[in-house]
Amino acid sequence: MLEKVVVALDAMGGDHAPAEIVKGAVQAVESTDEINVILVGKEEQLKEELYSKCRYGGDAIKIENASEIIEMGDVPTSAVKSKKDSSLVVAMKLVRDGRADAVVSAGNTGAVLVGGQLVVGRLKGIKRPPLAPFVPTTEGFSLLLDCGANVDAKPEHLVQFAQMGSIYYENVMGKKNPTVGILNIGTEEEKGNQLVKDTKPLLEKCKTIHYIGSIEARDIVKGKADIIVCEAFVGNVVLKFFEGLALTLFDSLKQGLMSSLRTKIGTLLVKPALKGLKQQFDTSSQGGAPLLGLKGLVVKAHGNSTANEIEIALKQCISFKNQKINEKIKESICD
Amino acid sequence: MLEKVVVALDAMGGDHAPAEIVKGAVQAVESTDEINVILVGKEEQLKEELYSKCRYGGDAIKIENASEIIEMGDVPTSAVKSKKDSSLVVAMKLVRDGRADAVVSAGNTGAVLVGGQLVVGRLKGIKRPPLAPFVPTTEGFSLLLDCGANVDAKPEHLVQFAQMGSIYYENVMGKKNPTVGILNIGTEEEKGNQLVKDTKPLLEKCKTIHYIGSIEARDIVKGKADIIVCEAFVGNVVLKFFEGLALTLFDSLKQGLMSSLRTKIGTLLVKPALKGLKQQFDTSSQGGAPLLGLKGLVVKAHGNSTANEIEIALKQCISFKNQKINEKIKESICD
Repeated sequence: MLEKVVVALDAMGGDHAPAEIVKGAVQAVESTDEINVILVGKEEQLKEELYSKCRYGGDAIKIENASEIIEMGDVPTSAVKSKKDSSLVVAMKLVRDGRADAVVSAGNTGAVLVGGQLVVGRLKGIKRPPLAPFVPTTEGFSLLLDCGANVDAKPEHLVQFAQMGSIYYENVMGKKNPTVGILNIGTEEEKGNQLVKDTKPLLEKCKTIHYIGSIEARDIVKGKADIIVCEAFVGNVVLKFFEGLALTLFDSLKQGLMSSLRTKIGTLLVKPALKGLKQQFDTSSQGGAPLLGLKGLVVKAHGNSTANEIEIALKQCISFKNQKINEKIKESICD
Repeated sequence: MLEKVVVALDAMGGDHAPAEIVKGAVQAVESTDEINVILVGKEEQLKEELYSKCRYGGDAIKIENASEIIEMGDVPTSAVKSKKDSSLVVAMKLVRDGRADAVVSAGNTGAVLVGGQLVVGRLKGIKRPPLAPFVPTTEGFSLLLDCGANVDAKPEHLVQFAQMGSIYYENVMGKKNPTVGILNIGTEEEKGNQLVKDTKPLLEKCKTIHYIGSIEARDIVKGKADIIVCEAFVGNVVLKFFEGLALTLFDSLKQGLMSSLRTKIGTLLVKPALKGLKQQFDTSSQGGAPLLGLKGLVVKAHGNSTANEIEIALKQCISFKNQKINEKIKESICD
């Protein structure tokens, strides 16, 4: 195995588990030889999916049995604590015990966040691990963090988000010295809530980041900053609103376009443009969102991920390991 | 004048002031006789706009001189306090002194919020006046409040927002017993930040509203609740993100559609459908947003309002007065 990245994949988490999850694993190992996958879940079911349905015959995918499943409706903290033989917890233990480099799960978001902290554990010095998805913009992608469930953050948390986000963005997107903004309700000096007002001077003083000030919500999608820091309640609201609005607009557009023969003919002609736009603003196009600042990599894939999204999420783990992102985070923050 | 609604219009506020503001006033009084407008601003300039450019000859529009202007970049509190002869402050004084029923301004949002509280004043018992815009949904419109600049709200503020929002929605939209949700990061019982957790039991107990629980951000645009309460930082972020994303998507769509001869031809055929969609999701289609809970009506129109938006904002004041919304708020909350 040597330099390969080993990913523990929660095969039972997500709306389309286990079929699409297993299929995604097969797609990933068939398109790159830099990755090995450990499918974690009910062994018999996974064997059926992997060997019978997908007819997989290679040795880059192994199966690790786990008898329980954390459901979407389970309360995160108690589920992680009580379902010790769940696919998610077993996958995380593989990382904790050094048998895998990363976990990917499309399951219960709260449980992934809780498990990341309780089972995988935080890097020394990291106060809070943020969930950091890329969101599409007209310029490419911006990293929005924290979008997790650890609400009511403190100023020092946001500063660490900015530092970790900068390292992640620089190494994954290949852009030196990426810009950092703080999400605010105006760009003027006196604007903001108490958290933003208290955080701004700390960001200004922070020498390891390229801070450019306040970013208004209307400018997120214009790519005004590469990294945008905010408290998790706000980040989560923005992320989900983005998803909801984009989907709704495309659905409404589709309905409008199918409303008459004339528009139907026109639609045939404009289809490529529409498809391109939909892909550009698909919030799940970048695979999963990492939880930054943990001892291993934990990637949360979208709950409704199909094989393609799982494949992308698995491949994300390659550059995360190869770029030694965690080592860089440790060096720059954890002293 | 008798039953006419008298609106003091800040003629110097907004990106297209005074030309479009004055034009909007003329359009309003020419299309309804239920309204009288007092244009507030630099007299000579307004006379030029009203009589020379618009060739207005009626008596439903008067001019009130004000020598100063609060600029978009001015710091709200100090601007309201120091520029006592500004068009905004003078317009608000007309309401305070009973010479007008309402103020409409497309100027500095912060100054409108501050002026509303300092000059017009809160109704007795109202703790905080929320800015309450209608946002477009697939079902019609939802009222999102607070979207103002009064951040870091308390649970009792959000309860009043729910009560005032219900009265406003019921009377303006004509829907009995409208539903109220609280913006949250999940619908499960344990989800939320401290403010949301503390507010939920109070909303459940509140008998004057039809509370239906948590609303996730992705469901706002699906119209899952008629009234959505949240803290102002979050509300402002959602509102501006909505604006930014919708505009950006339509711009990108336009670019894509103009990219080849084929798509250009198709665009001609689908144009009506696109136009309809753009109108449906235009966040400024409902004119301005009221500040609820003040002694008179204060309406904030969008900064880039043109004559049509000003006309709509002026006409909003008619139903606000005729439906006796402030009287109803006083009865139900202010005891």
